[in-house]
Amino acid sequence: MTTLTWDEAIRLASPHPFALLCTMGASGQANLMGIGWWTIVSWNPPQVAISVGRGQFSRECLDEVPEFTLNLPSEEQARGAWVCGTVSGREGDKFARSGLRQVPSLEVRPPRVEGATVVFECQVVRFIETGDHVLYLADVKAISGSPEKPRHLYSIHYHRLVSLDGSRLDPLPVDAGGT
Amino acid sequence: MTTLTWDEAIRLASPHPFALLCTMGASGQANLMGIGWWTIVSWNPPQVAISVGRGQFSRECLDEVPEFTLNLPSEEQARGAWVCGTVSGREGDKFARSGLRQVPSLEVRPPRVEGATVVFECQVVRFIETGDHVLYLADVKAISGSPEKPRHLYSIHYHRLVSLDGSRLDPLPVDAGGT
Repeated sequence: MTTLTWDEAIRLASPHPFALLCTMGASGQANLMGIGWWTIVSWNPPQVAISVGRGQFSRECLDEVPEFTLNLPSEEQARGAWVCGTVSGREGDKFARSGLRQVPSLEVRPPRVEGATVVFECQVVRFIETGDHVLYLADVKAISGSPEKPRHLYSIHYHRLVSLDGSRLDPLPVDAGGT
Repeated sequence: MTTLTWDEAIRLASPHPFALLCTMGASGQANLMGIGWWTIVSWNPPQVAISVGRGQFSRECLDEVPEFTLNLPSEEQARGAWVCGTVSGREGDKFARSGLRQVPSLEVRPPRVEGATVVFECQVVRFIETGDHVLYLADVKAISGSPEKPRHLYSIHYHRLVSLDGSRLDPLPVDAGGT
């Protein structure tokens, strides 16, 4: 076992599930941000947690409107997703810049990304300051998606995107590793 | 966009990064558990968060010794990892049952899984009750791994394991998606 730097560890731990976080500021304009730091945290009720950099524009939006959608972009949305992951919302309308289209959500104010593989509509129930981020714990209020587009995006060490379809990957030969 | 159930969404969102959580109870015996709900939450200082079911044995261990290692098992450890993901630590020594070998950690009491692709040694700084889990926020105190074993495990809807190597996946053609 070799000692690793944080950077080496994050590269080796790739691919990381890539999502687009959609928030809405008090002005009513929707903002998108690429996010790799998120996870499910409760089965019942369904809850997720996301970690947002303290200085990021999305963090300001979440302070104003504590709701978001967590969108897993599908393979064909890679180019738009990449724009969202590399440009700040302070620099203009991310939907316009990325070419991604928005569709109203069912239960929250920020919209969904049309054509995403999965979309979780979320309401923040708590936030916790971490080292240099803010961790938002949220209830999932509605779920939708595009089952016909199972290939969705993963990031490699923040430098590039790949797509994977869980149903098309070969299972490993593990005990009881059946259906 | 179709409405999805929680279960359908988790399947479509697959593959999920699979880790082995190693904890240690007051007795000093190490325990392993398969965990899919974890994420990085801070860059500086390095921090991770893990979500553990309230009734799980690992949760009792974390109450007693608030330290853990988060191990990303390598491809060849799939069989042992699957055992850890499907058997409770109350039913006996998981290291013995899984065939995985432990190696002392550098900074925390619970050991590391020998041969894991990446191991984060972590000290809990805070815990937050979620719906039916407990979310542990932790400082990463040391990092090690096996760079020669980049293929590590992902779970498909809790039913099977696959392995992926981020450096061997084809990048998508995205703007500036270079190295």
